[in-house]
Amino acid sequence: MAVITLTSDFGYRDGYVGAMKGVIATIAPEARIMDIAHDVPMQDVVHGAFVLAQAVPFFPAGTIHVGVIDPGVGGNRKPICVCADGQLFVGPDNGLFAVCAHQSKKWAAHQLTHAEYFRPDVSRTFHGRDIFAAVAAHLARGVPLEALGPSFPNPLPLELPQLTTDDTSIVGEVIYIDHFGNAITNIRRENLPSAKPRILRLLAGGREIAGVVETYEDVAHGAALALIDSAGLLEIAIRDGRAARELDLHRGSPVVVHP
Amino acid sequence: MAVITLTSDFGYRDGYVGAMKGVIATIAPEARIMDIAHDVPMQDVVHGAFVLAQAVPFFPAGTIHVGVIDPGVGGNRKPICVCADGQLFVGPDNGLFAVCAHQSKKWAAHQLTHAEYFRPDVSRTFHGRDIFAAVAAHLARGVPLEALGPSFPNPLPLELPQLTTDDTSIVGEVIYIDHFGNAITNIRRENLPSAKPRILRLLAGGREIAGVVETYEDVAHGAALALIDSAGLLEIAIRDGRAARELDLHRGSPVVVHP
Amino acid sequence: MAVITLTSDFGYRDGYVGAMKGVIATIAPEARIMDIAHDVPMQDVVHGAFVLAQAVPFFPAGTIHVGVIDPGVGGNRKPICVCADGQLFVGPDNGLFAVCAHQSKKWAAHQLTHAEYFRPDVSRTFHGRDIFAAVAAHLARGVPLEALGPSFPNPLPLELPQLTTDDTSIVGEVIYIDHFGNAITNIRRENLPSAKPRILRLLAGGREIAGVVETYEDVAHGAALALIDSAGLLEIAIRDGRAARELDLHRGSPVVVHP
Repeated sequence: MAVITLTSDFGYRDGYVGAMKGVIATIAPEARIMDIAHDVPMQDVVHGAFVLAQAVPFFPAGTIHVGVIDPGVGGNRKPICVCADGQLFVGPDNGLFAVCAHQSKKWAAHQLTHAEYFRPDVSRTFHGRDIFAAVAAHLARGVPLEALGPSFPNPLPLELPQLTTDDTSIVGEVIYIDHFGNAITNIRRENLPSAKPRILRLLAGGREIAGVVETYEDVAHGAALALIDSAGLLEIAIRDGRAARELDLHRGSPVVVHP
Repeated sequence: MAVITLTSDFGYRDGYVGAMKGVIATIAPEARIMDIAHDVPMQDVVHGAFVLAQAVPFFPAGTIHVGVIDPGVGGNRKPICVCADGQLFVGPDNGLFAVCAHQSKKWAAHQLTHAEYFRPDVSRTFHGRDIFAAVAAHLARGVPLEALGPSFPNPLPLELPQLTTDDTSIVGEVIYIDHFGNAITNIRRENLPSAKPRILRLLAGGREIAGVVETYEDVAHGAALALIDSAGLLEIAIRDGRAARELDLHRGSPVVVHP
Repeated sequence: MAVITLTSDFGYRDGYVGAMKGVIATIAPEARIMDIAHDVPMQDVVHGAFVLAQAVPFFPAGTIHVGVIDPGVGGNRKPICVCADGQLFVGPDNGLFAVCAHQSKKWAAHQLTHAEYFRPDVSRTFHGRDIFAAVAAHLARGVPLEALGPSFPNPLPLELPQLTTDDTSIVGEVIYIDHFGNAITNIRRENLPSAKPRILRLLAGGREIAGVVETYEDVAHGAALALIDSAGLLEIAIRDGRAARELDLHRGSPVVVHP
């Protein structure tokens, strides 16, 4: 039976996540429900998109991922289902699934219009329960993507910052701060010169960092470091510390690499 | 096989929730365990009662809900099991299940006295593990409610505030602040004049709010609003903000509606 | 099918826990995944060891516990699997499983060297995903402990403080602060004189506490108390309060018992 994952900004002190699980357990009693994360910063679609990008590639094809970071609930944004590389995503059309879709070789999306797959009496404030959880459960029971509504050819993209590259530098920026205070950038492994990453010089938060190392233990306790993280992105960290706080890094902070 | 949900104020940094899952997995290996929420504010039975009320109605009949907000553990409060509208609740008799029971058409309760359904060596400080999780697992295996102990006709109610209504106003109060800082009141949809909710005037936190809208996007960014939430209760919110903080609302703050 | 539990310091706002669940769901689709706790204080191996000790004894034999509090990831510390009293532990060799192993009658450990049980392309920064989750899933499918790598006879111990006992006092210390602010010590029930625990005098955080009581309700609201907790350890608490804050207790604070 299918796996349904849940990702939201609902936190852990209300019944909202539980309500979604109840809807799924009612419609698709054999579906296996797995929490990814519910402390996504409130209304932070970009953060949520990267949470999904960190987790989704490791699930089996056919997994159904419900994502509810949905500040526009009840307004004009459309409810959609996206299929990308065999993974299914159910949630709002606000860019939440754009990082996963962008990284996939092949994707398709449908708008959710067929109300027979919704809960009766859809509220205006909680589509996670009334539309997304219900649709995910129907998908788990075998309803095909195409049955949910018309094709939706242009889901909203995420406006992600681009790199600036010239002969003497690569200029990227911080896109994500994780629980450990690590600052993850939009500079990918393949953007760096492949030879001798340890002789690169980096500038982040006004601090010069010498070289890209392989793991936290490669530098001394308390030292700043740069490495390629487990998703292939350049990360600025402090060994046994919190880079975001100690280097005053936040989303948008520039990170410069001098080859 | 039955679903067992878990709701507590145990947080996410100790082994207490895990111990309860272990007890259930040992007694009823096929029961499906689902977390509702474990960051209920400490010892806040009223908050916990509303968390359950938000989630429970969406689970299939026969679901077993373990609730452990239990400041009186080991003292005189009784351990009980309540059946309300086909949902089963296991936990302390302190009002935690009163909102769900009160909303149900039909309910019954039994005191938990038959120790063969407890863990051996019941501690005085952790009935969630030693009594409630064990009893829930036995219920999942088919033990009937009546076998758990004698009928318990008068579970403790929650002392919830009542509305004051006269010709010119409805006076309710905030009963619950959620993760988003939304302030949920004891004024139900059916307490409001049914025609033209948009022309009602409301007063909350010293701020006048014009009309009950349908969703957050109906007002401008940063504006205060009132809507009927997904559980049918009047909610005071700030679009893209935190009403509790910005309007200084907390449990007990008055909310006045002028028809 | 086996149960796999997850315990980490990854928090609840990133995709790291989800990635581990995805790896398990891919390799062992029928394994049942249960979260113990993911808000273990960052890099706090001692705290994590006690979280496991609180939860693990209540799981059925054969349960597989993945623990990832792993500040040395990618460095010299070894990945291991420990079997203690029929429970399996997968994670770093840094003492995380030492409390459980130490309490067991019989244990054995193996180093994880056979890469056919890892994910391909093991990263240097996320062994929880690439080694531990994958190995746990293979264990759930029936791979025996011995197949994972060579015997590992001396896992790192935790350096836990010892009691000092003389004729007039037992001197222990706080080893763990829980979510409720309760201060749990290294003084076990069996270290105390068995007769008349209520006439013991205790000293903790500069406060004298009269007697070891049985439950929180045995003292007045706001009073300090000592009791034997649900794991058999002496705990200092404040009824309806937070002992750690109110008595300024932290790990290492001395607690003295005068028989």
